Amino acid sequence: MTENQRNEFKKLADLYRSELLDNVMPFWMKHSIDTECGGYFSCLNRDGAVYDTDKFIWLQGREVWMLSTLYNKVEKRQDWLDAAIQGGEFLKKYGHDGNYNWYFSLTREGKPIVDPYNIFSYTFAVMAFGQLFLATGNKEYAEIAKTTFDIVLSKADNTKGKWNKLHPGTRPLKNFALPMILCNLALEIEELLEPEFLQKTIDTCISEVEQFVRPELDGLVVENIGVDGSLVDCYEGRHMNPGHSIEAMWFMMDLGRRLNRPELIERAKNTAIRMVEYGWDKEFGGIFYFMDLKGYPPQELEWDQKLWWVHIETLICMLKGYNLTGDEHCWEWFKKVHDYAWTHFADKEHPEWFGYLNRRGEVLLPLKGGKWKGCFHVPRGMFQCWKVLEELASK
Amino acid sequence: MTENQRNEFKKLADLYRSELLDNVMPFWMKHSIDTECGGYFSCLNRDGAVYDTDKFIWLQGREVWMLSTLYNKVEKRQDWLDAAIQGGEFLKKYGHDGNYNWYFSLTREGKPIVDPYNIFSYTFAVMAFGQLFLATGNKEYAEIAKTTFDIVLSKADNTKGKWNKLHPGTRPLKNFALPMILCNLALEIEELLEPEFLQKTIDTCISEVEQFVRPELDGLVVENIGVDGSLVDCYEGRHMNPGHSIEAMWFMMDLGRRLNRPELIERAKNTAIRMVEYGWDKEFGGIFYFMDLKGYPPQELEWDQKLWWVHIETLICMLKGYNLTGDEHCWEWFKKVHDYAWTHFADKEHPEWFGYLNRRGEVLLPLKGGKWKGCFHVPRGMFQCWKVLEELASK
Repeated sequence: MTENQRNEFKKLADLYRSELLDNVMPFWMKHSIDTECGGYFSCLNRDGAVYDTDKFIWLQGREVWMLSTLYNKVEKRQDWLDAAIQGGEFLKKYGHDGNYNWYFSLTREGKPIVDPYNIFSYTFAVMAFGQLFLATGNKEYAEIAKTTFDIVLSKADNTKGKWNKLHPGTRPLKNFALPMILCNLALEIEELLEPEFLQKTIDTCISEVEQFVRPELDGLVVENIGVDGSLVDCYEGRHMNPGHSIEAMWFMMDLGRRLNRPELIERAKNTAIRMVEYGWDKEFGGIFYFMDLKGYPPQELEWDQKLWWVHIETLICMLKGYNLTGDEHCWEWFKKVHDYAWTHFADKEHPEWFGYLNRRGEVLLPLKGGKWKGCFHVPRGMFQCWKVLEELASK
Repeated sequence: MTENQRNEFKKLADLYRSELLDNVMPFWMKHSIDTECGGYFSCLNRDGAVYDTDKFIWLQGREVWMLSTLYNKVEKRQDWLDAAIQGGEFLKKYGHDGNYNWYFSLTREGKPIVDPYNIFSYTFAVMAFGQLFLATGNKEYAEIAKTTFDIVLSKADNTKGKWNKLHPGTRPLKNFALPMILCNLALEIEELLEPEFLQKTIDTCISEVEQFVRPELDGLVVENIGVDGSLVDCYEGRHMNPGHSIEAMWFMMDLGRRLNRPELIERAKNTAIRMVEYGWDKEFGGIFYFMDLKGYPPQELEWDQKLWWVHIETLICMLKGYNLTGDEHCWEWFKKVHDYAWTHFADKEHPEWFGYLNRRGEVLLPLKGGKWKGCFHVPRGMFQCWKVLEELASK
């Protein structure tokens, strides 16, 4: 490596570190913590003012996880730990029905508003309590993570339960999202699982995820396939979400590294590059939110918008791909998406990043947090990019 | 009225009549009828080519209704009647579970894909079979309409049944949509209802609908209020859909005329003008799809898009308001929205209208039909505008 390259990595590592520690986390620490009722506000205006007090379990769990992770991996800061514990206690008390069926949303005070139809409320509870256990050593948190993880696995065949609207039998599909999240979750809570069970779960998830990567489409990824593994020509079967597949591919790279499986890393890297190239908007820049495999009109009207998490997950994935394989395409794409993201999502006047841009890259919603955006993708992305860039610089 | 005005009304009446009979209906007659499996295709490209064969009950019912209505009110054309009956027979055979619980969608062949969670599949079945009964005199159709209407009323308190995700009791809301549709439905099937029951139903629905028109907001309309009638400060409680309230207001005007209640017409007209003014995009023109009462970020990412039905329903409503009250604001708004709609939604190269534009008025999806757009709002709007303009010209 040239000295120039090393300096570029160092400079970028410093940029991401500083954005995380001096800009993004202070924003959430200052504005999101509900000191009166517990838990976190996530509906925050551009400047951090709370505009809605409902509490969404996805984002409650993710903030507990983020704060605990930073405490575990960056610095033993008491304020992070306190904030994580208070969120965890709120979740423990109000987030579920008593049997670890996790609601989707609560009032500010913790009363359930939306019932436990959504499996990802469960998966983010697992992440939260797994990492909070590592931060505190409190076995009760480990127990919650483990019990909830078992419930997630038991629901894998029909994650929506009675809220499932699909008529049984006519056109059975399976979806990419759960095995994809499980790839990440398994590593998050590996200390809590029997090694053999962990290995089996990981193997199953990898093979599930790879079924959505289609050789007959030169490696494109679809979000839904038939239970028999076939492509299905309907809205759901044609549905593509480039950011989602790219995010999955860095989970696969993490697994490949952990399991010492370079061929898995290589495949994931190639799939990720394929999806970035496919998803990139050649007219206005940025990566589309949703696409239709056949180029038909997608059913989602927001398909052409540019979302923060799509771009941040791509940054992480391209950096990991570059770090693990040395493929220069990854570095080129990292730089291109980095430029786009810092120009369009970063807010010059207030901390944290915008979440929702229109196709042209103009701010569509000025929020910093909402029903789906919280203390998660931006800080996790800053942390991941910082760490990979640091590793690159130290080579 | 001056001769000039009369000529303008005549010319416009002719434009809408001709668009309906020479452009829009031939498009659906040519492209939507599935001569092999029965029912209608609704997923049609710009030029009419079928891109997806799934059948959505909303749109199946609405096309039966549209064809029957034209047969009943415009001309006794055998091809319209045949097309209506074949759609009705498909619906009768495959559209429900045997007990008139209407599915949301079917495969091309009629196998259920999405279960009967959506009450509007039921309401559009009522409209379809009510009007098809008037076209054919076939009492079986009347029976289906009446039975389904009773089921709709029986579900009014929890329209989603087991698929309802709202946790009971925490924050009970009621929604504008069902009483609004019932206002229209009651007149559609009035021949099938006992006069006393009809009167009671209409009175209830009018008073329900008017609860969503808020005096404390100078007559703005919200989509959800507390069951106690209060405004609720949450995403759903702040949710506004200008096109939806404007559409409701012409249903109210029709009821006002039928019941000879000029004060009802006057209120509906004022509400409609208020909502058009509120919903109009002063920067790019057109009416926003969704808004937040407090100006907070709406949860729907498509909030700023311009949808065909919003604009067509506004044309109908402004014309009816003008015809029934003479308020010049209605005529001004009609002309403004007419210009916007014919410039942006009408397709110069192929029949039928575009459905989805971005905020700037550029075509977002090139489809003529999809999961939610079928043979309904455009032809109904052309028919309604034609008839009101004809009446205006004959004064």
